[in-house]
Amino acid sequence: MSPIDLPDVFIHSHALVESPFIGAGSRIGAFAHVLPGARIGQDVDIGDHALVDGQVQIGQRVQVRPGAQLWAPLVVEDDVRIGPNTVFSGPAGPGAAGCSKVGAGAVIGANATLRFGLSIGPRAQVQDGAVVTRDVPPHAIVSGNPAHIVGYADTPHLDLPVAPRAASQLAAPPVLNVATARLVALPKIVDLRGALSFGEIGTHLPFTPQRFFMVYDVPSKEVRGEHAHKACHQFLVCVKGSVSVVLDDGRARDEVTLDSARMGLHIPPMVWGIQYQFSPDAVLLVLASDTYAADDYIRKYEDFLAARGLPGR
Amino acid sequence: MSPIDLPDVFIHSHALVESPFIGAGSRIGAFAHVLPGARIGQDVDIGDHALVDGQVQIGQRVQVRPGAQLWAPLVVEDDVRIGPNTVFSGPAGPGAAGCSKVGAGAVIGANATLRFGLSIGPRAQVQDGAVVTRDVPPHAIVSGNPAHIVGYADTPHLDLPVAPRAASQLAAPPVLNVATARLVALPKIVDLRGALSFGEIGTHLPFTPQRFFMVYDVPSKEVRGEHAHKACHQFLVCVKGSVSVVLDDGRARDEVTLDSARMGLHIPPMVWGIQYQFSPDAVLLVLASDTYAADDYIRKYEDFLAARGLPGR
Amino acid sequence: MSPIDLPDVFIHSHALVESPFIGAGSRIGAFAHVLPGARIGQDVDIGDHALVDGQVQIGQRVQVRPGAQLWAPLVVEDDVRIGPNTVFSGPAGPGAAGCSKVGAGAVIGANATLRFGLSIGPRAQVQDGAVVTRDVPPHAIVSGNPAHIVGYADTPHLDLPVAPRAASQLAAPPVLNVATARLVALPKIVDLRGALSFGEIGTHLPFTPQRFFMVYDVPSKEVRGEHAHKACHQFLVCVKGSVSVVLDDGRARDEVTLDSARMGLHIPPMVWGIQYQFSPDAVLLVLASDTYAADDYIRKYEDFLAARGLPGR
Amino acid sequence: MSPIDLPDVFIHSHALVESPFIGAGSRIGAFAHVLPGARIGQDVDIGDHALVDGQVQIGQRVQVRPGAQLWAPLVVEDDVRIGPNTVFSGPAGPGAAGCSKVGAGAVIGANATLRFGLSIGPRAQVQDGAVVTRDVPPHAIVSGNPAHIVGYADTPHLDLPVAPRAASQLAAPPVLNVATARLVALPKIVDLRGALSFGEIGTHLPFTPQRFFMVYDVPSKEVRGEHAHKACHQFLVCVKGSVSVVLDDGRARDEVTLDSARMGLHIPPMVWGIQYQFSPDAVLLVLASDTYAADDYIRKYEDFLAARGLPGR
Amino acid sequence: MSPIDLPDVFIHSHALVESPFIGAGSRIGAFAHVLPGARIGQDVDIGDHALVDGQVQIGQRVQVRPGAQLWAPLVVEDDVRIGPNTVFSGPAGPGAAGCSKVGAGAVIGANATLRFGLSIGPRAQVQDGAVVTRDVPPHAIVSGNPAHIVGYADTPHLDLPVAPRAASQLAAPPVLNVATARLVALPKIVDLRGALSFGEIGTHLPFTPQRFFMVYDVPSKEVRGEHAHKACHQFLVCVKGSVSVVLDDGRARDEVTLDSARMGLHIPPMVWGIQYQFSPDAVLLVLASDTYAADDYIRKYEDFLAARGLPGR
Amino acid sequence: MSPIDLPDVFIHSHALVESPFIGAGSRIGAFAHVLPGARIGQDVDIGDHALVDGQVQIGQRVQVRPGAQLWAPLVVEDDVRIGPNTVFSGPAGPGAAGCSKVGAGAVIGANATLRFGLSIGPRAQVQDGAVVTRDVPPHAIVSGNPAHIVGYADTPHLDLPVAPRAASQLAAPPVLNVATARLVALPKIVDLRGALSFGEIGTHLPFTPQRFFMVYDVPSKEVRGEHAHKACHQFLVCVKGSVSVVLDDGRARDEVTLDSARMGLHIPPMVWGIQYQFSPDAVLLVLASDTYAADDYIRKYEDFLAARGLPGR
Repeated sequence: MSPIDLPDVFIHSHALVESPFIGAGSRIGAFAHVLPGARIGQDVDIGDHALVDGQVQIGQRVQVRPGAQLWAPLVVEDDVRIGPNTVFSGPAGPGAAGCSKVGAGAVIGANATLRFGLSIGPRAQVQDGAVVTRDVPPHAIVSGNPAHIVGYADTPHLDLPVAPRAASQLAAPPVLNVATARLVALPKIVDLRGALSFGEIGTHLPFTPQRFFMVYDVPSKEVRGEHAHKACHQFLVCVKGSVSVVLDDGRARDEVTLDSARMGLHIPPMVWGIQYQFSPDAVLLVLASDTYAADDYIRKYEDFLAARGLPGR
Repeated sequence: MSPIDLPDVFIHSHALVESPFIGAGSRIGAFAHVLPGARIGQDVDIGDHALVDGQVQIGQRVQVRPGAQLWAPLVVEDDVRIGPNTVFSGPAGPGAAGCSKVGAGAVIGANATLRFGLSIGPRAQVQDGAVVTRDVPPHAIVSGNPAHIVGYADTPHLDLPVAPRAASQLAAPPVLNVATARLVALPKIVDLRGALSFGEIGTHLPFTPQRFFMVYDVPSKEVRGEHAHKACHQFLVCVKGSVSVVLDDGRARDEVTLDSARMGLHIPPMVWGIQYQFSPDAVLLVLASDTYAADDYIRKYEDFLAARGLPGR
Repeated sequence: MSPIDLPDVFIHSHALVESPFIGAGSRIGAFAHVLPGARIGQDVDIGDHALVDGQVQIGQRVQVRPGAQLWAPLVVEDDVRIGPNTVFSGPAGPGAAGCSKVGAGAVIGANATLRFGLSIGPRAQVQDGAVVTRDVPPHAIVSGNPAHIVGYADTPHLDLPVAPRAASQLAAPPVLNVATARLVALPKIVDLRGALSFGEIGTHLPFTPQRFFMVYDVPSKEVRGEHAHKACHQFLVCVKGSVSVVLDDGRARDEVTLDSARMGLHIPPMVWGIQYQFSPDAVLLVLASDTYAADDYIRKYEDFLAARGLPGR
Repeated sequence: MSPIDLPDVFIHSHALVESPFIGAGSRIGAFAHVLPGARIGQDVDIGDHALVDGQVQIGQRVQVRPGAQLWAPLVVEDDVRIGPNTVFSGPAGPGAAGCSKVGAGAVIGANATLRFGLSIGPRAQVQDGAVVTRDVPPHAIVSGNPAHIVGYADTPHLDLPVAPRAASQLAAPPVLNVATARLVALPKIVDLRGALSFGEIGTHLPFTPQRFFMVYDVPSKEVRGEHAHKACHQFLVCVKGSVSVVLDDGRARDEVTLDSARMGLHIPPMVWGIQYQFSPDAVLLVLASDTYAADDYIRKYEDFLAARGLPGR
Repeated sequence: MSPIDLPDVFIHSHALVESPFIGAGSRIGAFAHVLPGARIGQDVDIGDHALVDGQVQIGQRVQVRPGAQLWAPLVVEDDVRIGPNTVFSGPAGPGAAGCSKVGAGAVIGANATLRFGLSIGPRAQVQDGAVVTRDVPPHAIVSGNPAHIVGYADTPHLDLPVAPRAASQLAAPPVLNVATARLVALPKIVDLRGALSFGEIGTHLPFTPQRFFMVYDVPSKEVRGEHAHKACHQFLVCVKGSVSVVLDDGRARDEVTLDSARMGLHIPPMVWGIQYQFSPDAVLLVLASDTYAADDYIRKYEDFLAARGLPGR
Repeated sequence: MSPIDLPDVFIHSHALVESPFIGAGSRIGAFAHVLPGARIGQDVDIGDHALVDGQVQIGQRVQVRPGAQLWAPLVVEDDVRIGPNTVFSGPAGPGAAGCSKVGAGAVIGANATLRFGLSIGPRAQVQDGAVVTRDVPPHAIVSGNPAHIVGYADTPHLDLPVAPRAASQLAAPPVLNVATARLVALPKIVDLRGALSFGEIGTHLPFTPQRFFMVYDVPSKEVRGEHAHKACHQFLVCVKGSVSVVLDDGRARDEVTLDSARMGLHIPPMVWGIQYQFSPDAVLLVLASDTYAADDYIRKYEDFLAARGLPGR
């Protein structure tokens, strides 16, 4: 039935394949349609009723489950799984710019919808039925309509000890997987006039701050941070409410929920940091070792890995 | 009727004066009772039915209105006015320690009640019917049952311009009466991910911080601060809610309500500072130029005035 | 000076004692007045300017501090302390029944006020400046204005271990005492899109409105209104929250709490109207039969009574 | 493969077309199935794997993207776009009445689900993944599960000036695109007793009200209004909270957010009005120039356009 | 086109059927794919483009609408309807255990997504676009992303009379369909000190309680109960907030919303009970006639029907 | 003693009267002082220790209770009652304008304070201890510090018809001083479906309940309980919020704050119990061993002590 016959590719008798660029060991299911110009790697499985648009590029060992629709421009990296009936929308009109991209190892569930032009980061997870309207960072798990980040894959969550009611010194905080980062217990003084937490250079702060900033009024579903610094140290204290912080040095990962003005978190340079799950009343104080310098920021995870001499994932 | 006759003192024929230590020009009203040992200065007016306990010391030009009761140990400085039927309680029992004190120029209203052993600061104002259960700082105005601080006398309140909805740079903030202190507009960045305010050394911060502290969960009627530093600079930002700050260099005074993360307040050394009227959700960030040193604090207003070479008031 | 001389009692030369029933070891201060018939136990101290009414009964070892007034009928048991300028009120009128009583060991602070007929339980504590309007149970500590229970004396506090609406037509509203005013049930329509109340001329509104106004953000303890109109009709609807309205035609009076958008209140001319007890969220809509005319307002109650041909009260 | 061959229609060799009623220039994709009786206009594109039920009527220049399912009874007007894998449900059972309808120019996203029997208005937009359970008005943009209105297409939003803190007269409000409608600044009086806004005939109100109604307790996702009046004028004031109002005279459109009791909006007859995005605390007062008359309402947008002598869109 | 031809089954010429286990009277639509090993009962309708995995078992009279995907292991009982483009996910990886199951008479809407391994109870309803991540109990209606219970099918909701403000006795409550259960009006006493509701044995309580429990802090979308007792009586009172209770004796069903401390509900043994739609502040008091005995609980609905001698549904 | 003798006026021998303008039938008490120029009407009673300033005008049948101070300028109309130790302040300084005024029939309580220049309306009531800082309207009843309107005298109120955190076993609780009472730890089970606490006879409950009641909506300053039972046992659990309970067997006392559904309190007969400090959301469940019997209650503490064979305190 298909006009093209490829010796190392299994093409179902009821499939319609119009592109010759399909890698060895791949398989095209019944009623599937691969349009002219599509480029598919080795050991890829295209399910029944699936549709692969021309100009779509698919890596190796990718699974495209039945009924899924992949519209160009779209690049799917290696080892990705795309669930049944999931749709990658194409551009809204003829002149629309952009290109959708799915990073290596990402998993997309069933019946998901991905708006055109988005980037799904490596090892990210899009859950069943999610309607994705914004870029998904590496490792992030997203869910819902519209989709928002509900967690990070491959990231152990560290449970901090509950601060006792009495205002005495907190026990030594736990050690992090990311070895250069450190949790620092801060003194808290409570009297009839309210509560006060503080930190001093040397004792608590490993650097002299040249800059401070305060983050607040963050919608609960928003993510802040998602970058690393080349040289700048940061010290985070969540004065009110709570916020979850993900740390990643390219090898080890941690997630810790800051929910006490008695706990500081020192993030040294060359550690990828993410802040999310802000409570409605969260106020996050950040002290920084340097004044603002745009070129101190590494904003792409792959650049961060490269800067650390690690392979992209 | 009185067993003692003092030539330069007007003693009403129906008064009962048992102390000879009364200054010239003073006047004792009908049915008033001055007990043995009381010491009263010049030009003092003791109203009808008033009672002055032995060992009470009263300065000059003091008015004690009818029916007021002054129980020892109590020291009343010059130029104080004490309202009708107001009571300074004596000690609760025979062994109770302490001494009540009223600073120069203070004004106490009618029917007020002052618990034993309290200190009413110079130029403070206790309003009618107030039930005073704690020390009243200099210049403070207190009211209610129990009394709390509702304002500061002789202190102009500075109205800050309303921050516009758009997140652009604030207009130059107003100049303060206390010439060494300064309001500093801070940049604020608002995007879909929430709000962020920041400050940097040089541009906004006139010193390099060695310490930070965060004040929160302050009951609305409480006062914090009420001290000056000998050498330490402070920089205040009210990240959430609002707080009123009173500044005093011994000559000029200011009150300003901080209610925006876009406004910093630099308090240099040798300026008396008071923080009060915290809103329930207030979070105040303070950056300090020095690590903690107990002897950098001047905690008594009279010591502060002395250190500035100014006469006590 | 006192007509009575008791050998075992110290009576100050300026005291006025008219009762012979005073126990041995007691002491009466200067300008104090003990009325005929008062019965005072042994070792009692009556301070200067104090007043003890006839028929008052005082036990033993009681201290009555200067300026205190004890009005009959009153029974004070043993070992009570009554603070300076504190008043036990007598009955409000000649026929008022009841008797005030202070239980043994109770302590009353300075400048306190105790309404007639109350019972202060044994060992109770009335704090300085408290205005006591209800019985005080045994051991209770009361404070404030009005006084309320803040704790129990002699009672160890045990610390527990820490662990963690058919929107059909309303029935006919009641008839008011102020005969010319009228409550009007308004239709309300509720559907999935929210609630809607309405009124039309003829059916609900007895006049054609020429003006509307909306009242909101009223502090709960504030009063609005307090006037009558000569010619203008008003129609009030409390759309949100609640407000109490007082009506007065000079003879009859009503108070009604409006708390539903389904209830309108027609206030005709020549009815004195008061609005008070606004809930924090109250929104009051007023429709008026005339445009604003300053001389249509009668703002003084006496003028209102005169205008109605009624004597001032 | 298809039993029917139509000269001016491109039918893919793997498509299954069982209806002859397909207009010239149309195109049927691979694995698509058009059932007997379906009627399809000119220049229509039916994507791969799509299913068009018998008795479905499709206008001209319509795009039906791959995998979409259109179940009868359903009428799709001209220039509509229906996204991939989107489903128009059929009736729940054999006897179910009704017909689904999509107005001209509407855009339906990917993976959307539309319950049977709904009407999607002309130029409306259903976003990706939306689950539509109620009619969508003309121009409305809907999103979510269940879907609700998030905006209106082709409607410029007018930013009102921020009301200053001081209670002086507001600057002249901006002019609307809908020329017969008018924004009216209202005086506001604030004193210690709260706030009061008012309006009078002549000065602020261009008509004499015969009826008032108050709208409140509106769920934030609900829409009210969506009609025009033939003769009745309306005057809207949002006393508390905020509400967005869309105006449309058939040629020009406006959206304005009313959020101040100091701003009235006069909507004259023959202007289509929509109210939505009520804040939880919103209270909207409406004064109307006429008593209620059911036949004064135009409740269908196409009737409104016809009444204005304009072509349907 | 299909390799298998079955005399009593209608297989569309464009369908692909690889399993011989299909019951008489069934129908397989165009472009549908039934994999080897699938077992399909009689009178089943498999729509166009549908996909039935090998090892899937389907009962009789089941409708699988076009584009639906049924992945093994999965058992679909008789009389089920599965909507268009709906996906039953397969296991996430090769070693994943479990089996999805859909009970008899269940209805699944369009574009729904069902995570692998879930059980959908008999006669349950999954609404359009629902993303089902947890088991769905018998009769339950679920909706949303993620899906939660919004009601129960075949269950009449009983409207209770509104409790009047005055604290007099409530009118006799309505009679329930489940004849052995009973609503009981409780007296309520309100005074200045708050509100009090009570019940007594004989008058209100039909048994002597041996155990009580209190349910609170229930997330609004959670369901509690879902069981029957063999011998234990229960008496429910919702002291604060509201909760909906579903009763089922295997023949008749009731749903009643308890929202008043004045209404008790007696649930006798051998009645299936469900509690859901707790308001955030709901506090439910339950009195039980017996102490806790694990074997008194019937936790599976089919066991309950069997114990009552009724056929499974 | 007084320099002026007026034939129709009773002047106490210890009074000091310096004004001749006193009406017939009036009476001046001991130690009272009427200054030159005061004008007093007929049948006026000036109490002991009272002070009437010169230029004060008092009407007829006025009562000025002992210790009251009336400072000029002040006009007191007929039939006014002014309570003991109440003070009308004079002007704050020599140039202050204004005049205080008390309308006919007004009643001022004891120890009240009235700021200078205010008008107290006819028949108004100023309650004991009130600190009046604003005009008081006719008929208004004011109370508090500062005083506010709490009602209107002579005004019937019309009642409108109703319109529409590890959940393991707790450690053994502490032993109480009141030996017969007992705290009982209750198990609590928390899962994703919310929280559940329970108690059983024998294990937790020392009696079989015949009655239950639930207390809620208690104003925070109110006290419930304050009684003992002759025969009835009670078991208290605070399901939501918190409440403090005081226990007293006539010899020993305890106070315990119940704030967890995991803690029950058994109060046996013949223990005096008090409940106070209810949090706004408190829900207290009480199980009782007997049905209601009015004569089982001992409502007076002295009766309770007598019933226990103990002397009154």
